[in-house]
Amino acid sequence: MRAGELGERRLIELLVRGLYRNSRVVAGAGEDDAALLSFGDRQLVAASDIMFASTHFPTGMKPEHIGRKVAVANLSDLAAMGAFPVAMLFSFGIPTVFEVAELRGIIKGINAACSEYDAPFVGGDTKKARELTICGVALGEVRKGGALTRCNAKAGDVVAVTGEIGNAALGLKILLERMKTAGYSKLTNAFLLPRARIEEGRAIAECRVSAAGMDITDGLLFSAGEIARMSGVCLSLEKDRIPISEEARKFARKYGISEDFLLNNGEDYELLVTVRKNKFSQVRRKVETIGGSLVKIGHVVEGRGVLLDGRKLKITGYDSLKSRQP
Amino acid sequence: MRAGELGERRLIELLVRGLYRNSRVVAGAGEDDAALLSFGDRQLVAASDIMFASTHFPTGMKPEHIGRKVAVANLSDLAAMGAFPVAMLFSFGIPTVFEVAELRGIIKGINAACSEYDAPFVGGDTKKARELTICGVALGEVRKGGALTRCNAKAGDVVAVTGEIGNAALGLKILLERMKTAGYSKLTNAFLLPRARIEEGRAIAECRVSAAGMDITDGLLFSAGEIARMSGVCLSLEKDRIPISEEARKFARKYGISEDFLLNNGEDYELLVTVRKNKFSQVRRKVETIGGSLVKIGHVVEGRGVLLDGRKLKITGYDSLKSRQP
Repeated sequence: MRAGELGERRLIELLVRGLYRNSRVVAGAGEDDAALLSFGDRQLVAASDIMFASTHFPTGMKPEHIGRKVAVANLSDLAAMGAFPVAMLFSFGIPTVFEVAELRGIIKGINAACSEYDAPFVGGDTKKARELTICGVALGEVRKGGALTRCNAKAGDVVAVTGEIGNAALGLKILLERMKTAGYSKLTNAFLLPRARIEEGRAIAECRVSAAGMDITDGLLFSAGEIARMSGVCLSLEKDRIPISEEARKFARKYGISEDFLLNNGEDYELLVTVRKNKFSQVRRKVETIGGSLVKIGHVVEGRGVLLDGRKLKITGYDSLKSRQP
Repeated sequence: MRAGELGERRLIELLVRGLYRNSRVVAGAGEDDAALLSFGDRQLVAASDIMFASTHFPTGMKPEHIGRKVAVANLSDLAAMGAFPVAMLFSFGIPTVFEVAELRGIIKGINAACSEYDAPFVGGDTKKARELTICGVALGEVRKGGALTRCNAKAGDVVAVTGEIGNAALGLKILLERMKTAGYSKLTNAFLLPRARIEEGRAIAECRVSAAGMDITDGLLFSAGEIARMSGVCLSLEKDRIPISEEARKFARKYGISEDFLLNNGEDYELLVTVRKNKFSQVRRKVETIGGSLVKIGHVVEGRGVLLDGRKLKITGYDSLKSRQP
């Protein structure tokens, strides 16, 4: 069977089955946003995200945008674990005809993000390749037992997100289809200049309320399904509560794009979290203290899967191996 | 200017210039075999190595060989720092037509190496790509100040290697040119089934004698040049002392391959180290205790660069961006 027929998720399930592990592994391959490992008196958090020019960098992305995007995608996995960034590595595959000036632009974008999140770019690799390839690695730390994992949701919890949903998916659509951007810079900027919710993740983790968390880069509903699956619960979401920007609504209305598109497409680096009901106000206040927001969009119930306004969903999410997107 | 004109080393020099760093960074990008970071009561060692089907996996490599090779290449960077392996991550770029059975073979090879070196495969990523791409990450630890760095060589030190030089380079040549392998399985196995010198690296580091170390995957003379450059000294090597296997000598004689080829081509995962002269016997005994070997091939003198039998060398080493190798 070919990889494209199986798709990314089933392929990963198949590949990680029966991997060797030892007592230092707290969360291993395929188990959470990042690996979690015992390391001295703390825990080491490690995530890696690989991107290819042919799939991930649409025309219209400047080198600095590309660099920032790869850095933020990796940092977002630390955010989803409530981790403190320590450092980053980047390995490059470079066509021999690739312009050095563009590479310098990419590094500039990476370095700006590394500085912003205090996660120095400390190593990696450079090799010849057929297309521009960037593999990032984010290393972070949490106190023992302090990570936000995907398996911590319990019936009764509040489900919440850290920001607006769908801006980046529309921004990507605008770039891919070379649509007019006038009036929609919020959407294109959400894609081109993303932010990782590191401070929000840490604020939530510091409340020590046993929350669950995941980023929503493969789509809000996909992530809801993952937390539900890993925690053995059902996430019941209310459509009206899901924060969608004015610009996204206006754009979607104008071009006949359904709200489902916004909820099923990724590229937003917001966090989806669940928090015990009696702790939610406290956690929201803490997130607001650092300038963030935490918006309730539903609650956790017994059962399996995801409900949207009471209707059970079949969730697919974005799958790069199955996708025909350029 | 294009990347291929600049070449890998000058490109890296250019790209890492002026990167952001903070007080946790002990060794950053371009400074050693791996990044070295303060982490609680210990130091975190992190290295990443990326490989592409078109450059790194010649015909004749089985999926298990490919998996093992990527794992060992990354672990070798931990070995060169004298680090204890903690875990590994692997990110994959996969053409949609790639056979799932082959991927499973690759994972099998990776997992076998992870188990052998007690470094569990704990995470990574999977995306669509134009050619098979594997980016590995090795995470390890050392006690504070315990790493073997490239900048520790001092005039008077003994220069030594952990094993035979050139077997793997000839093994790769045999595979690339589809030559007869009968009688030369030692050479092809050196390429297909490499070992990382983790135990040797740790044994040397545990002697606490302020040694310098680097692996020789880009060629023995290139690594000698790197240690010389980073330490501000000259490495003086004696050709007759460099351990070359009977099989390699026989093969090289038969096909008219110069000894320079063996010393300038990589793929061997041996370590090149320098040790204070009065500590060398002690360190060698320690390495022998764990079943390894440490062979003196020269000594460190004042000056710059590398001497081979007293002759100053101009060193190039393997450069994937400049190479026309398939």
